[in-house]
Amino acid sequence: MDILKAFGQQIREFRKNTGMSQEDFATSISMDRTYYGSVENGKRNISLENIKKIADGFDVPISELFKGL
Amino acid sequence: MDILKAFGQQIREFRKNTGMSQEDFATSISMDRTYYGSVENGKRNISLENIKKIADGFDVPISELFKGL
Repeated sequence: MDILKAFGQQIREFRKNTGMSQEDFATSISMDRTYYGSVENGKRNISLENIKKIADGFDVPISELFKGL
Repeated sequence: MDILKAFGQQIREFRKNTGMSQEDFATSISMDRTYYGSVENGKRNISLENIKKIADGFDVPISELFKGL
């Protein structure tokens, strides 16, 4: 599996664990909902600053988002 | 320190541990030398696919590149 899809699946798991919808989570980190959804779907070559934003939203270090990938 | 600078410092350490120059390492992963140098300097909002390329170049998982950040 390519890294974009693997990362997307990983953050989807993190988000589901929070109980938030894509929309609620995206809003909580001031990210466009459609953009966030396409990242979960592995369709965006997301940048480091946005990866950081997502990690901060889950209150975990970036390394945690890549654990096992 | 912002995440781009922190990441740049981290990969600089990894590269120095390999004993390779910026140019040699960039060449080994088919990345433009100038672009790679600007990533080490924290001046590029690098994308996930390029982060993966760098991790593969060091033969480590991406999580390792973010350890301690």
